[in-house]
Amino acid sequence: MVIVMQEGVSEETVAHVVAVLRGDGFEAHRSDGKSRTVIGAVGVNVEVDPRKYQLLPGVHEVVRITEPYKLAGRKFQQEDTVVRLGDVAIGGPEVVLMAGPCTIESLEQVETLAPLVKAAGAKIMRGGAFKPRTSPYSFQGMGKEGLQIIRRAADKNGLKVVTEVMDASQIELVSEYADILQIGARNMQNYTFLKALGQTRKPILLKRGMSATIQELLLSAEYILAGGNRDVILCERGIRTFENFTRNTLDISAIPVLKSLSHLPVVADPSHGTGIRDKVPPMARASVAAGADGLLIEVHHDPDRALCDGAQSLLPDQLKALTKDLKTIAAVLGRTFA
Amino acid sequence: MVIVMQEGVSEETVAHVVAVLRGDGFEAHRSDGKSRTVIGAVGVNVEVDPRKYQLLPGVHEVVRITEPYKLAGRKFQQEDTVVRLGDVAIGGPEVVLMAGPCTIESLEQVETLAPLVKAAGAKIMRGGAFKPRTSPYSFQGMGKEGLQIIRRAADKNGLKVVTEVMDASQIELVSEYADILQIGARNMQNYTFLKALGQTRKPILLKRGMSATIQELLLSAEYILAGGNRDVILCERGIRTFENFTRNTLDISAIPVLKSLSHLPVVADPSHGTGIRDKVPPMARASVAAGADGLLIEVHHDPDRALCDGAQSLLPDQLKALTKDLKTIAAVLGRTFA
Amino acid sequence: MVIVMQEGVSEETVAHVVAVLRGDGFEAHRSDGKSRTVIGAVGVNVEVDPRKYQLLPGVHEVVRITEPYKLAGRKFQQEDTVVRLGDVAIGGPEVVLMAGPCTIESLEQVETLAPLVKAAGAKIMRGGAFKPRTSPYSFQGMGKEGLQIIRRAADKNGLKVVTEVMDASQIELVSEYADILQIGARNMQNYTFLKALGQTRKPILLKRGMSATIQELLLSAEYILAGGNRDVILCERGIRTFENFTRNTLDISAIPVLKSLSHLPVVADPSHGTGIRDKVPPMARASVAAGADGLLIEVHHDPDRALCDGAQSLLPDQLKALTKDLKTIAAVLGRTFA
Amino acid sequence: MVIVMQEGVSEETVAHVVAVLRGDGFEAHRSDGKSRTVIGAVGVNVEVDPRKYQLLPGVHEVVRITEPYKLAGRKFQQEDTVVRLGDVAIGGPEVVLMAGPCTIESLEQVETLAPLVKAAGAKIMRGGAFKPRTSPYSFQGMGKEGLQIIRRAADKNGLKVVTEVMDASQIELVSEYADILQIGARNMQNYTFLKALGQTRKPILLKRGMSATIQELLLSAEYILAGGNRDVILCERGIRTFENFTRNTLDISAIPVLKSLSHLPVVADPSHGTGIRDKVPPMARASVAAGADGLLIEVHHDPDRALCDGAQSLLPDQLKALTKDLKTIAAVLGRTFA
Repeated sequence: MVIVMQEGVSEETVAHVVAVLRGDGFEAHRSDGKSRTVIGAVGVNVEVDPRKYQLLPGVHEVVRITEPYKLAGRKFQQEDTVVRLGDVAIGGPEVVLMAGPCTIESLEQVETLAPLVKAAGAKIMRGGAFKPRTSPYSFQGMGKEGLQIIRRAADKNGLKVVTEVMDASQIELVSEYADILQIGARNMQNYTFLKALGQTRKPILLKRGMSATIQELLLSAEYILAGGNRDVILCERGIRTFENFTRNTLDISAIPVLKSLSHLPVVADPSHGTGIRDKVPPMARASVAAGADGLLIEVHHDPDRALCDGAQSLLPDQLKALTKDLKTIAAVLGRTFA
Repeated sequence: MVIVMQEGVSEETVAHVVAVLRGDGFEAHRSDGKSRTVIGAVGVNVEVDPRKYQLLPGVHEVVRITEPYKLAGRKFQQEDTVVRLGDVAIGGPEVVLMAGPCTIESLEQVETLAPLVKAAGAKIMRGGAFKPRTSPYSFQGMGKEGLQIIRRAADKNGLKVVTEVMDASQIELVSEYADILQIGARNMQNYTFLKALGQTRKPILLKRGMSATIQELLLSAEYILAGGNRDVILCERGIRTFENFTRNTLDISAIPVLKSLSHLPVVADPSHGTGIRDKVPPMARASVAAGADGLLIEVHHDPDRALCDGAQSLLPDQLKALTKDLKTIAAVLGRTFA
Repeated sequence: MVIVMQEGVSEETVAHVVAVLRGDGFEAHRSDGKSRTVIGAVGVNVEVDPRKYQLLPGVHEVVRITEPYKLAGRKFQQEDTVVRLGDVAIGGPEVVLMAGPCTIESLEQVETLAPLVKAAGAKIMRGGAFKPRTSPYSFQGMGKEGLQIIRRAADKNGLKVVTEVMDASQIELVSEYADILQIGARNMQNYTFLKALGQTRKPILLKRGMSATIQELLLSAEYILAGGNRDVILCERGIRTFENFTRNTLDISAIPVLKSLSHLPVVADPSHGTGIRDKVPPMARASVAAGADGLLIEVHHDPDRALCDGAQSLLPDQLKALTKDLKTIAAVLGRTFA
Repeated sequence: MVIVMQEGVSEETVAHVVAVLRGDGFEAHRSDGKSRTVIGAVGVNVEVDPRKYQLLPGVHEVVRITEPYKLAGRKFQQEDTVVRLGDVAIGGPEVVLMAGPCTIESLEQVETLAPLVKAAGAKIMRGGAFKPRTSPYSFQGMGKEGLQIIRRAADKNGLKVVTEVMDASQIELVSEYADILQIGARNMQNYTFLKALGQTRKPILLKRGMSATIQELLLSAEYILAGGNRDVILCERGIRTFENFTRNTLDISAIPVLKSLSHLPVVADPSHGTGIRDKVPPMARASVAAGADGLLIEVHHDPDRALCDGAQSLLPDQLKALTKDLKTIAAVLGRTFA
């Protein structure tokens, strides 16, 4: 932390700030310039709220100089984290495709989609059994039955499963059926839940909150990592802006920024990020071109009848055509795809 | 729902849309203009995703014409909901002050503050025992001991208690000690939690999410109301914008908008809404002038030593001075204060 | 500027940064802590882009410690600027009402409104002769004829005139008829225009851009002040956020923030800030309660037939009723109104 | 426009709305459903403000059904507009690179950069002679001398020139030296300026305002097109969001959205869009992958000494390496690059 004093303050005022800092366990170093004094405060007191020092008499500005996350940072771990599920590796040289319906609707739906998803190059099948819905009157998911359906269909087709957990109370149940636990954007700062996820040993796919900053996403990952679970996958899924043509604004620049700040894998969700089917392929291409480690894409064989988000689901053929493009783009970055 | 067709589409195309709508359980009424056809769809199918119809051939635009919330709306209930806690009524003619520290730190702190808060005109004491913190390394609250401390101090001073619940698993414990359960901004769309809150009979103070729209806040309230708990108090606490001078941007206009859309009481939190002590009084005055039913204000007798948010806490004397101003402003709106 | 070095960098690396700073005309002061070195750079080089130093090897973070504006700041001038127009003073003890139609439509309209506006307590009449319209096909204003109409009506009723200038080429013409030149939100960062305004001696009412930060508003004011025109009035008129129920989000907290950072008068425009007639009175009350020096309010005697923004215009009787409320609220802050 | 009436309103109320619509020159078609009446209003009255009808008694909602722009829309012109400058075509099969320094600093600088830019595959050289700066104390550009320098250097190297015009008064001068007139984000809604640009016959590169919606960008283009200048190039350069790690948030999804709504060419500016040198290559790749018709990239041979935006400028070698990647990605979309 650096404390910049106002111009022309008395020696006493500076001494008071130094004393407060030392009382809080900081080492304090003064640098007296012609017009201002700057105090460098070094310490391990992670509880500190910089605004406290801001209010001391004579203080002009307080600046944090350390990122508040540790385990999630590149400083803590230089090499990329690779999350491994059998022969599937997320964060390694392969860009991994996770595809499937928004919501699990029936045995027939999932069994129709699974081989199509596999054929398009996906390694992991997605599909929600528990659905967070803005309205209490919307379809809330098939629950346990849905989990059983997707697990069976995935196994039959050599796919892994990623599906959403909405609450600490569901962790145990979902863990029985899923390979990766997905945490929705609305739960990104549900801290008691994050702590519980830190106690599991299942990989976590953590979606960025709708208005979360990159730093907040990393701090939420930190909650899980601090609990001992090191397999966290970050997911950019669009942020809320004033632009309403698209459902959200997929923040593609978050991909290279996260890759440089953190060692964790970063995937993108162009389906939720745009909300419009024909915008999914360009944004999928853009995500891979920007360095994403994977993609989460909604696909449905009959989107007009989908119970949820049909409007943003690709048709299986569209997904297949897209895969071909992504292979070439991944190669530009020295990576493979599908 | 109104479906506006593109110009010059064929009769067949229109007929197809009408057929789809009827298949989904809607009554469909056509209006054929010179250049366009408009189809009015009336139904009770609340599951509908308007984007589904958007994708049908020949459709120009789909417009929802009903608010997706019901119980929270003025249409469902004309007269204001008044939440009653013994002799305290929130949503009635009195503008109610809820004040106290950000976090419960010690017996001594709470016992010092309670009589000061009471003297300043507060009817309800606030103070967190469980704290949602962005960093896993920050102080996370005193838990049960904190709840016991605030309950005792409030009782001794004739105050009610509002305190945060972070998770469904804490509802029972917190309900033993608190009169109002506060739901934090980060939990506003934690739907399994909202459903659990619908099952309790404790009043709920529901904070608006950092980037939630007014409609989303009402839909979250709807989750609680739909469970049978009708005592929901809405709280504006600042939204995230590009302006960074203040911690958040307190959306004062949400107060009159919520009051006209909904019958639920609306309170404002100028402490979190600004994050800066000397901006709390002007924003508290503005909130009451705009029609708030109550205020949630952080106060601390020794904010320099506060474990949390000292920078935005008023001193007890500042709160008292503010109370005087608020009394006069409340009177302008035909209301009382403190 | 404070340069925080990375942990564990070599003496050489630090020396290089110091050398670069000195080469750019800075005085550089080192403070060597146990794990980090911090360099304080003091200078008068206002051109500096902090990102330049950010890129030097070994640099962890660069922090600006001086506000980039000067003449607009409280440091430059402690006492409030009061803009005087004959017997009207903006920024003094009186909260000043500026009211009138969005756009000047006809002689009859303005002559009907002027005495009503005066009777409601306004000191200044507003009304646009040149209108910035999002669509090129919308009504663009009456131009010079409109200016003549509003001037005559204002004079007859003892009112001053504020009206918009859209371009440097219009300054001379509008200055003939207006007492205050209004600069629209879309022109807030039109720098060649701001420089031209600095050369006039007419008071300027500068509206905050739709997504401008408070600091950017002050920097735009600085352009005018630096040209020698010291009569600048700042105007909060709503910022763009994800909330779409209101046309914009009136950032009431900007009022106390601007009042503490700057000595310039601050007025609020609740008509554009909300875009909805029945939300104007609560937001006008809130603005005065938060410390505004004045209000800019749209009023129309026949809003259903207004050519522009009728939906956000108050009826004259509504304005009169509001005035009564504002008088009492202004008194709470030790001020007068109307 | 579609007017949705409230439930259960009287026949008289509906008749009044119909009468008002007809009075305003609309054809009005009624559709009476079981619980609601919907009125379709068709007309050519482009001045209409939908909020006017919103305020009529009994009206539930008013919905616009036509885009307010015409000439910029795909409906007006199906085939892509291709802007031609001799042998360079923007909007055709080639993705065009425009590169150069942020600001023209000296003859030596431009003469050093021009051949490097050419060698990297650029067809057009960029460089500002007039600079819009947030602070009045920052370097404001070399003016006419700068224009002469860039023109000469471009000619010598077989490059075209794009450079910013800040004001109607500069159009004539800049047109003498430039092939494309660039309009900055802060001027996107400077309507008198846009009208003047409609009168020139130089191609215009119109940057999206920092918080402009896609529709507003198209309406600003409409101002220029309506004046008779059909050579407008749209430019996505980043929007303002709450995320502050990057200078702006480059809205990559705006590229495919603009390409489907409009026939005008769309280019991206990843330099201003991110503000950070090492984020420019991934975002340039993403822009081309999403379908951009061109890129505007800042490059400097000595960015540490650049007078402006050195931190976001690529080194010439970095640009060259990037070009290779972009060639392959462009091919995925069936296009060429450089």
